[in-house]
Amino acid sequence: MSNIFKFLTNSVIIYKIKNMNMKNKTIKIVVIGGGTGVFNTLMSLKNYPIDLTAIVSIADDGGSSGVLREEFGILPPGDIRRALVALTPESGKILTDLFNYRFENGSGLRGHSFGNLFITALTNITKNFNKAVDEAGKILNIKGRVVPISLSQCRLIAKLRSGVFIFGETNIDIPKNKEKNVLIEKIFLDNKVEANPEAIKEIKNADYIIIGPGDLYTSIIPNFLISGIKEIIRNSKAKKIFVCNIVTKFSETNNFKAIDFLKTLEKYICKNCFDYIILNDYKKIPKRLKCIYSRERKQLVKFKKNDFKKYRKLNIIIKDLASKHTLLRHDNKRLGETLWDIINQ
Amino acid sequence: MSNIFKFLTNSVIIYKIKNMNMKNKTIKIVVIGGGTGVFNTLMSLKNYPIDLTAIVSIADDGGSSGVLREEFGILPPGDIRRALVALTPESGKILTDLFNYRFENGSGLRGHSFGNLFITALTNITKNFNKAVDEAGKILNIKGRVVPISLSQCRLIAKLRSGVFIFGETNIDIPKNKEKNVLIEKIFLDNKVEANPEAIKEIKNADYIIIGPGDLYTSIIPNFLISGIKEIIRNSKAKKIFVCNIVTKFSETNNFKAIDFLKTLEKYICKNCFDYIILNDYKKIPKRLKCIYSRERKQLVKFKKNDFKKYRKLNIIIKDLASKHTLLRHDNKRLGETLWDIINQ
Repeated sequence: MSNIFKFLTNSVIIYKIKNMNMKNKTIKIVVIGGGTGVFNTLMSLKNYPIDLTAIVSIADDGGSSGVLREEFGILPPGDIRRALVALTPESGKILTDLFNYRFENGSGLRGHSFGNLFITALTNITKNFNKAVDEAGKILNIKGRVVPISLSQCRLIAKLRSGVFIFGETNIDIPKNKEKNVLIEKIFLDNKVEANPEAIKEIKNADYIIIGPGDLYTSIIPNFLISGIKEIIRNSKAKKIFVCNIVTKFSETNNFKAIDFLKTLEKYICKNCFDYIILNDYKKIPKRLKCIYSRERKQLVKFKKNDFKKYRKLNIIIKDLASKHTLLRHDNKRLGETLWDIINQ
Repeated sequence: MSNIFKFLTNSVIIYKIKNMNMKNKTIKIVVIGGGTGVFNTLMSLKNYPIDLTAIVSIADDGGSSGVLREEFGILPPGDIRRALVALTPESGKILTDLFNYRFENGSGLRGHSFGNLFITALTNITKNFNKAVDEAGKILNIKGRVVPISLSQCRLIAKLRSGVFIFGETNIDIPKNKEKNVLIEKIFLDNKVEANPEAIKEIKNADYIIIGPGDLYTSIIPNFLISGIKEIIRNSKAKKIFVCNIVTKFSETNNFKAIDFLKTLEKYICKNCFDYIILNDYKKIPKRLKCIYSRERKQLVKFKKNDFKKYRKLNIIIKDLASKHTLLRHDNKRLGETLWDIINQ
């Protein structure tokens, strides 16, 4: 009798614990991107009670990152650094100032970002890029985790609609064909590059995958050119959210409407893969500010609800999301609230 | 009545608190030095329940420190970095590895110590060397505090017994007159340099002041050339302890006995200022190891008790203190125990 009683009591306890775990399971969110776009999305989410991972592009080859990539043979640390800074708590301001600090003097130091040197030194000490990034995260006491999309070197190549090829992320980012207004036809890597197993693991375990905003061809799409990434996203049961850009980028996405961003992105992942698209309500932007954009040869990303009629499962979220300060980027607070509403639906 | 009662109760409480504070007051120890010598003393003390401050020389002008001093106009960070590393807890190993890391590649980075770049970047961000060092200490979670002896630039000048002058700490450290075996007559600074007010404050509040070991002319004495330092030590009621070197340094202290170290040092501070001298029991060093020293043109620092007969207040502590691993430096554990015994007398 006593044994049966024990068995029953234990079963009830185990059931209760399992149930508690189900209820208390922290929602896992994976943000994929690069550059300053992913910075905003991470900033917008870092104060919510979620398990947050930034999976970051390694296609950067300009500036301080480019020099370190050439001279030390390490992966370009620039995008990793931005993501680490984005996830550092407000109390770590001195550390983020340090990470963002750029040497202005010194024959050999000028132009180097301190954060990039930090990651370079840690990589050489640990002999392992994943570990170096995790250790940097610990030192910065970040909320969440930063994972490079791949541990292998690669270069980005763009084929323009004119048939011309451009080699290297920086050259594509600031292309010489600017004046000609020739757009990109296709983007690819110079070699087959395997995904970082840690990135695969993080995506596999995600409840939500958030992509964007950011430079479509140089910060967002390079992630999906890495072997294994688009397959894992395609097969994932996670809800997929695309945070569309507020403005176009001259020479990359001129005249792009929201539907063009979505279509181009899906070409590199899979058709109809998104569950949500978050659009900035471009009508809320005052006329006088549109001038600033046009001076920078940027256009507001527009849309009609009708554009998305073929996307049956796609939920279209339209919100006034442009920052009141710069208007060129998302307001972190409002983007965070919008994403949090989706997660809590 | 009630007021009298209140007054009496409060008086008792205040007396009790004062008494508690007296009993619980943490002993404040200030270690003054530079180079690797001060590193050992700090390592030996950091795990004891004391209030520990390292006051560190700023005379260094070679290597990575020298380049940063020239190119950024900041104080040389090398000795500060060593002291910070010495005070970092064992759990911060990755951070100390990082601080000690020296770039081996990179056209402009080769030879730079990462810790030096860390302090340089922090100085440029905070615009305040004291604050930069304190912030670095917080990031490393150090036990105690590191304070530069001065916030002003200066250069060390040595006058040799031959009448020749040598300019700069590095040149004195590795002097060109090595073969001639000409010793230093006098050492001084190229300009009048004020003490760091924080250093003055720390010395003023010290219960014990520990000096050495280290290179006498290039790491120890430069601290007492800073205006105000010797006066504050002279007038301090703190017990003063000199940890004498285990071996001499060729071209600086050839044939020096312990009494010569003491006399030279006191010339730059004040006569009879020390309460304790800690001597390594040179007789305990095996003969075969003396060969290693002589190959490096170093000699064991010897002494006779009689040498110190004029130093009435001086307590002479003789212990087997040489490290079993290197023998060129003090064993941290045994040096710590020796100092702790003095403090607890």
